[in-house]
Formats: sequence, C-alpha cells, structure tokens
Amino acid sequence: MTSGDSLQRLRDAKPLVHQITNYVVMNETANATLALGALPVMAHAREEAADMARLAGAVVLNIGTLSPAWVDAMIAAGRAANETGAPVVLDPVGAGATVYRTDTAKRILADVDVAVVRGNAGEVATLVGVAAEVRGVESIGAASEPAELARAAARTLGVVASVTGPVDHVSDGERTIAVANGHPLLASITGTGCMSTAITGCFLAVNRDRPLEAAAEALVAFGVAGEDAAVGARGPGSFHVALYDALAGLDPDTLDGRARTS
Amino acid sequence: MTSGDSLQRLRDAKPLVHQITNYVVMNETANATLALGALPVMAHAREEAADMARLAGAVVLNIGTLSPAWVDAMIAAGRAANETGAPVVLDPVGAGATVYRTDTAKRILADVDVAVVRGNAGEVATLVGVAAEVRGVESIGAASEPAELARAAARTLGVVASVTGPVDHVSDGERTIAVANGHPLLASITGTGCMSTAITGCFLAVNRDRPLEAAAEALVAFGVAGEDAAVGARGPGSFHVALYDALAGLDPDTLDGRARTS
Amino acid sequence: MTSGDSLQRLRDAKPLVHQITNYVVMNETANATLALGALPVMAHAREEAADMARLAGAVVLNIGTLSPAWVDAMIAAGRAANETGAPVVLDPVGAGATVYRTDTAKRILADVDVAVVRGNAGEVATLVGVAAEVRGVESIGAASEPAELARAAARTLGVVASVTGPVDHVSDGERTIAVANGHPLLASITGTGCMSTAITGCFLAVNRDRPLEAAAEALVAFGVAGEDAAVGARGPGSFHVALYDALAGLDPDTLDGRARTS
Repeated sequence: MTSGDSLQRLRDAKPLVHQITNYVVMNETANATLALGALPVMAHAREEAADMARLAGAVVLNIGTLSPAWVDAMIAAGRAANETGAPVVLDPVGAGATVYRTDTAKRILADVDVAVVRGNAGEVATLVGVAAEVRGVESIGAASEPAELARAAARTLGVVASVTGPVDHVSDGERTIAVANGHPLLASITGTGCMSTAITGCFLAVNRDRPLEAAAEALVAFGVAGEDAAVGARGPGSFHVALYDALAGLDPDTLDGRARTS
Repeated sequence: MTSGDSLQRLRDAKPLVHQITNYVVMNETANATLALGALPVMAHAREEAADMARLAGAVVLNIGTLSPAWVDAMIAAGRAANETGAPVVLDPVGAGATVYRTDTAKRILADVDVAVVRGNAGEVATLVGVAAEVRGVESIGAASEPAELARAAARTLGVVASVTGPVDHVSDGERTIAVANGHPLLASITGTGCMSTAITGCFLAVNRDRPLEAAAEALVAFGVAGEDAAVGARGPGSFHVALYDALAGLDPDTLDGRARTS
Repeated sequence: MTSGDSLQRLRDAKPLVHQITNYVVMNETANATLALGALPVMAHAREEAADMARLAGAVVLNIGTLSPAWVDAMIAAGRAANETGAPVVLDPVGAGATVYRTDTAKRILADVDVAVVRGNAGEVATLVGVAAEVRGVESIGAASEPAELARAAARTLGVVASVTGPVDHVSDGERTIAVANGHPLLASITGTGCMSTAITGCFLAVNRDRPLEAAAEALVAFGVAGEDAAVGARGPGSFHVALYDALAGLDPDTLDGRARTS
C-alpha cells in the first residue's frame, strides 16, 4: 500500500476532478473531494461537459439521478477524458433496479473507456449478468462471492472493478485486493458510496498508470476516515460531519500503517 | 397513538420510499428516511419513474423545485403507485405563491389518487380555496382555524390532510388529530417540512390501511426527534446535525409516551 | 459601516430572496439565508421564474451548474426583478473555465440590469478581459491587483463589483471598500462563495439605494460569522455546521465594531 504517498501527491497537485453526479450527493462529493485535498467541479450541460472534462485530471460519472440530457453529457465528458488520457470512474448507482439504469450503465461502458467501476455487489453483479438482489439503490446481495464478483467484472467489462461492502474487493481481473477498512456508520448516511467513487477519481488523477492500486488506496483512505469519524459520533448526523473533518485530517505519514488490506 | 409500533415495523420492514422531490432538500430527506430506518430512492426521469414507483412501499411527490418534465414523472410515479397500492404523499410546496405551483398541485391531485397531502396552512388553504397569505414557500397565515382547515381540506380533496405548524392537525374529514410535538428550531432550517412529508411516506408504507393514524404518528416521531435535537443545539447548524442523530435514536418503546396528541 | 443596522432591518423585514442557483449549494445558500434572517425561495422553471421574482425583495442568479433552460429562467427572473426594482446579484461561477460559462455570464449582464457581481478574482477578471488563471471554478490568480480589478470591473460592467479573496474588494468604480473579515476555513468547504452571494442579495433587499455599502456590509457579516465558526472547529465539517450557528448568532449591536474595512 502506498495510500499515504498517493494522498501526499494528491494534496500537492490538487487535481481538478470533474464530476457529473446525482442531485442527492453533489454537495457531499464536492466537499469530500475538497476535504481530501483535490478540487471538485460539477458541470453537466451538454454545452460544456466535454470542455470541462478536458481540463480535468479525472472524470467521475455517477448515474444516481439520471435523465437523457445528463447521460449525453456523461458520455461527452467521458470521451473527452479518453482523448486527454484522464481516467474515468463510473458509479452505476441503482443498476439492476430499473431497466433505464441498467441500460445506461451499459451504454456508458460501451461508449467510454472506463478505468474503474465502483459499485455495490448488486450493481456490479447486474452489469456482469450475475443474479443479484437490488432494492432501489441498495444492494441486498449477489449470488457470487464478492472477490470472485470483482474479478469476473474486471474481466467481463475490461475495467478495474471496485466492489464495496463490509469488505471491499478491487480487481483488475488478475490481482484482487481486499480492503477491510471502514465502519458500519458509513452505511447510515446517503452518499458514502458516491463519496468513495469521487475519492477513487481523486486517487486515479495522480495515478494514471496504476488504477488497481489507486482504487484500493482510495478505499483505504476513505475507510480510515470513516473509522476516525466514528469515534465520538452520536449517530448518522454527527458521523457525517466528522467524516469531512476526518478526510481533511488524514495523515499521509501514518495512512499506510492503518491499511487493512490483503 | 401507536407511533412506536409503527416505527418498529418500519425498521423491521425497511420499506423502499420513492421520492421525487426538490433539489434543495433531496439529501436531507434521503438522510432523514435512512436515519428513521427506511430506504430512500430518488428517481425523477420519465424513463424510469413509474418503474421505480412499482418497487416502492410508498411514493412521495414534492413540488418544491418543479419543472414540466419532473411533473410528468411525478404523475407517472403516482399512477404506478396507485396500481400497486403503494400510498402516495403529496407536498404542495409553495402552492399559492405562483400559478404554476398551484396548478401543478391541483393537477397531481386530479390525476393521482393521493393518500395524504402534507403542507403548511397557506399551501393547504390555497388548495381548498380558503384565503391565505403565502410568502415564497413560507406560510404567513390562513383565514381558517387550522383544525377546521385540515378537516375542510380532507373533505374537499378526498385525502388525509396533514397541516403542520406550531401545532399540527391531521384529518380525514371525520376525525382530526392534533399533534403538539416539535420545537421552534425546526423552522430555522430549510427542508424540515419536506422531511416531515418524507417521514409521513415512511409511516404510510407500513400502514396502508390507516393513513390518518400513520400521518399523525409520523408527525409525533418527527416532532419528538426535533425535541431531542434541540437539547444542546447552539443554533440551526448544530440542530440540523442533531436531528439526524435523534431520528436514528428514536426509541419505539418510549415514543408513544412522549406523544402530545389530542 | 452600518452592517449591524442592515442586519437588524433584514431580520425585521424578512425579505424574500429568490435564488436561481446551482445544485451543489442550493441547500447551503437556503440555510445561510434563513440563518441570517431572510426567507429563501428557489424556483428555476421558465413557467414560474418571473412570477416568483416579482414577489422577491432581491434576486440571486448563480451559474454554478447551468443549462439552457436555467439560463432562460435566470434572464426572465432578472428582467422581472428589473421591473419591480428588486436588486439582482450575479455570481458568475466558473466564468473563464468554459466558453459556455463565460458567454452565459456576459449574456446575463447584457440582458439584465445587474446591481452587484460577486465573484472571485479569476471570474471577474474574465468578465472584464483581464488575464486570469482559472481552474474549474477555482481562481488561481489574476494579472491585476484585486482592488484595481474591482474598480475596473465596476466601470466596465456598470455594476458594483464584489471581488472576494483573502481580502475582499467592493467597488462601484468610484469608491472601493476593502473587507478583511473572514477565515481560511471558508475556503475549505464548497459553496461559501455562493453563500456570500446569497447574503449579498439579502443585504441588497433592504438597501436598494446603496448597493456598494450593502455589498460590503454583507461581506463583513459573512466574514465575522466565518471568524466565529472557526472557533473550536476541528475541520471543514464542523466548521460548516458552526457557520450556520454563527450566522444566526450574529449580533447587530456588535457587528460594526468587528468590521475590518478600509
């Protein structure tokens, strides 16, 4: 793990991370990006999505509250990023819940060269055709064991698959890294999955050539922040507030020592 | 009051509550829904609104930042819920402020079988044709006494009317329940009205056959959470954070004893 | 400085401040407006934007996440405010980052009589044709000294220019007021620039005839709230929460004595 080194380089470089994401979490992912040390920018209009993506160190596409114009902008931004070489991260929120979401996630994967797909087990299983139980945007379970699911998704989709849950599994189809950092309170607020996707984008922006490692390092950093935020939290509200404090307070020098990876 | 029993059943069943709501409070109502113990999902595209509504235990329609495509999706979702029997809750935010809002609220009531309308006195008075003073999305007052307004709205609109204010009044046209729980700090942050509507949806999802009682029980639960959150709050910011902690901390065993209903 | 007097009149009058703003900060600017003591309303549909603007004491236009329909609504709202005499405040978020943003800001300035433009140095420099470095929606620097930039912008654009940064400069082209209130933590969360624009609108609503002074008084009030919020903050999350508490806790009687203006 070189999560600490990546974090330090991220804070030095302050990469611009262009996010086309859902209405529910836009403030949350922007603030998580800032707290970590990168610069967020949100721009969803077809009139400017590609222009903004060309300025970015990474592009994050999240289909949590999608509609046709936004999907067009996501594809335009993703293709522009492909031209500049900026990594693209896709969060297929709710894939499996409705046909529209499943089809849109697949369309983005077909039209854009996606570096990392970050989703829960149900969403990722849907994309690879494994049976899964999805409830709205919540994953109830997948028929496949999560490490195997990540590996299968990486191979089938030609991406790094980052499947988060009680233990996260990140795979490029050959190697699979398990990340056990985190805290149950992360599941008590909306948008922590989306935040982990945004933070994956931040880490990718300073690690273009090692997406597998960067995606795992991002989950270590976010998980450690969750562990720190849980200390003294009295419930989901105070945990949520403490999470930003904890992201800003992450210490690059001690981060690797706290990684629980295998 | 069986607010505690409903809360326990809600936490056990974790119903999916589909919300088409305004941009200002989307994160807030999602987090309030989660903190209470249900599962929120936001989906506003015409391409999927009905599909998502068919999966839901209740549907919440809120016109706080409406536009034509969203209104179409609200009606599609409402009708889909009518087919499955999932209760529909309408929050006519700002009815009376602009013709567009008033007309849209009436159109939804005409096209969808709405179980509960949750609004402030000015909004509800507008819908029943009683003189009211509205300022933006804030109710300044209505010509009618609130208990009477709730009863008249229930009869005129054929719904359970939930009129919130310093004391809330919930009526099905026959019976009217007054709920005196709550705290003045609830008026100091945006979106608490919208949260009470979302929570009404949560309680309706596990109480399809008793919408009057469920709507009142929801206001008891939300009001008690507001009372708990006010303890130690230093202003609207810290109150807002404590409100989520308090919703998550609501105790089904003691909730009924704290109800101030008549 | 009569920031305290303006704040007191604002709290007495509770003006309605109509905001067409970006998705990222909508909740934040609404809550900042409420915490200060005014009434926010968000309404972006072309079907009602002008109607809502006619009810407002001030109109705030913010292009942070723009799209064509929203721009149309901004112009309709701005023109309606021009008819009633309600001041219009423009926040040209990200001008200079993409052609679409720059062109839209210029189009609004051409079509609407804008009272105050509130932006960072890079955004304002872009609008007056001064070389500037912009990174997404973040200003890296401008070729011009900020006081001079504010004065040039006021003259070129025919507005009061409010250029915020480590020290803020507000100018009507003749007089320029420097405001040194604030705290570095304000730059650690997203939306504080947008909040300062919303608060500028609040102060303008009760000061139609003195936009220069009102814009500076708004920055004093917001800066002092930032200073108060920083006391005891453990990072950006807890600072963000304390900022609302501090805005609500601003004391009109002591505010002027804390102004650091020149």
